[in-house]
Amino acid sequence: MSLETVSENRSFGGTQGVYRHVSVATGTEMAFAVFVPEHAAGAKLPVLFYLSGLTCTHANVMEKGEYRRACAEHGIILVAPDTSPRGEDVPDDENYDFGKGAGFYVDATEEPWAKNYRMRSYIEQELPDIIARNFPADMDRQGIFGHSMGGHGALTISLRNPGRYRSTSAFAPIVSPLNCPWGEKALTGYIGQDRAKWREYDACALIEDGARLPDLLVDQGLADNFLEEQLKTHLLDEACRNVDMPATIRMQEGYDHSYYFISTFMADHIAWHAERLKS
Amino acid sequence: MSLETVSENRSFGGTQGVYRHVSVATGTEMAFAVFVPEHAAGAKLPVLFYLSGLTCTHANVMEKGEYRRACAEHGIILVAPDTSPRGEDVPDDENYDFGKGAGFYVDATEEPWAKNYRMRSYIEQELPDIIARNFPADMDRQGIFGHSMGGHGALTISLRNPGRYRSTSAFAPIVSPLNCPWGEKALTGYIGQDRAKWREYDACALIEDGARLPDLLVDQGLADNFLEEQLKTHLLDEACRNVDMPATIRMQEGYDHSYYFISTFMADHIAWHAERLKS
Repeated sequence: MSLETVSENRSFGGTQGVYRHVSVATGTEMAFAVFVPEHAAGAKLPVLFYLSGLTCTHANVMEKGEYRRACAEHGIILVAPDTSPRGEDVPDDENYDFGKGAGFYVDATEEPWAKNYRMRSYIEQELPDIIARNFPADMDRQGIFGHSMGGHGALTISLRNPGRYRSTSAFAPIVSPLNCPWGEKALTGYIGQDRAKWREYDACALIEDGARLPDLLVDQGLADNFLEEQLKTHLLDEACRNVDMPATIRMQEGYDHSYYFISTFMADHIAWHAERLKS
Repeated sequence: MSLETVSENRSFGGTQGVYRHVSVATGTEMAFAVFVPEHAAGAKLPVLFYLSGLTCTHANVMEKGEYRRACAEHGIILVAPDTSPRGEDVPDDENYDFGKGAGFYVDATEEPWAKNYRMRSYIEQELPDIIARNFPADMDRQGIFGHSMGGHGALTISLRNPGRYRSTSAFAPIVSPLNCPWGEKALTGYIGQDRAKWREYDACALIEDGARLPDLLVDQGLADNFLEEQLKTHLLDEACRNVDMPATIRMQEGYDHSYYFISTFMADHIAWHAERLKS
């Protein structure tokens, strides 16, 4: 596996890079962004994975996320992958919430999606291996967070891999695909009609079924158009309360679903991860 | 003159807005972005104008500039106008460095540009009036800065209007249009062949001809592809030294011409403006 450098720009004393490689998991080329802060030669830094939302690539958070100052301050590498396989040969859907840009961090089992839509394997296995081999990352100190569909990805991936991630947080996550139109459409399409199989892709169901995290940080805007129908933050709150799992869930007055919201709380989240990654 | 709200998003406790109006100066619709931090009812805040570079609209700095945290911290309004008139009836050029997206903050005198390309009047007169009437801005406390072509705009506008701006800074500015291909092309096109008329649009020439600022902050990346042929920062350094005008000109190792560079030093610049705007 060889990694191609698409671009590297100096920023906040470190390097913001974009890289491309042929993915075994998805059978396509995949691009991702990595910010590596300034560090001593030979040092290994904690690494934080950021999973993006519907329609996004690696570029949205790289351009609008405002994470580099805080990552430089805390000495943390940030990795931002794409949200789905890409390419002319990859099956797609005409809507923004399924197909390209909408991988939902699952391994699809249904046709025609099963061949390429393997974002779970990509994020859980292939990408960490690539990061470990090509960047100064301390893989014993990993954290994960994300936005919306990527918040769903971060929560479910962390819940399914106990002990792997020292810290988990989300901005406006989809907390229960079993209970919202985005989730129903995506999981029916990628995983099929058997809703029992969806539970490993549903943060609330995973908690109900026994998965635990030491703690959790969520910020959710109260002016978010998707809150009521799709995000349903209260379901996560209830799931955590039901099993006494610690969770800091903050409802933020006036904030919407955009990067104007995410960037506002980005430094908070990175500080929260830093506390856990560097302890 | 009525102002249309295109969008408003809550961010860093304040409001990031985009507004549209019909401009008397350019004879076109113009859009601009304004960030208003949280403030006490009735309070008037200092206002900082940010002028963008070639190819940009108001949106580039709004999305990639990372200014909201610092503006919120210091209680400063930031205004980001477009770089030229826009619209189907506005004359254009096929290249990126002339015509739409490349107004160079001049009042054009040559045809077919003279009718619409009046960005000097727009930035010096019309836009400040609109800001004063529609936002909680203290117009006795104005600052100005910009990037590349917008750095040229900030420097020349401030130098031509002594006392109006309490603070002036630039990222990678074009310091002497008389002495670079971008400047020669733009000023020949907009102002004509008589190079004596260009001097009021050339920061170095303005200083040579007697204009002064109390001080000045410039950051310039040493890995900037445009440094040698177009930007020529040393000419500004020499012009200031020749007349003992204070100027802090910092050459930054490894940084290029992009927003990865600008965002890195944005908080520094805003703090520098804040010190002068709030003293």
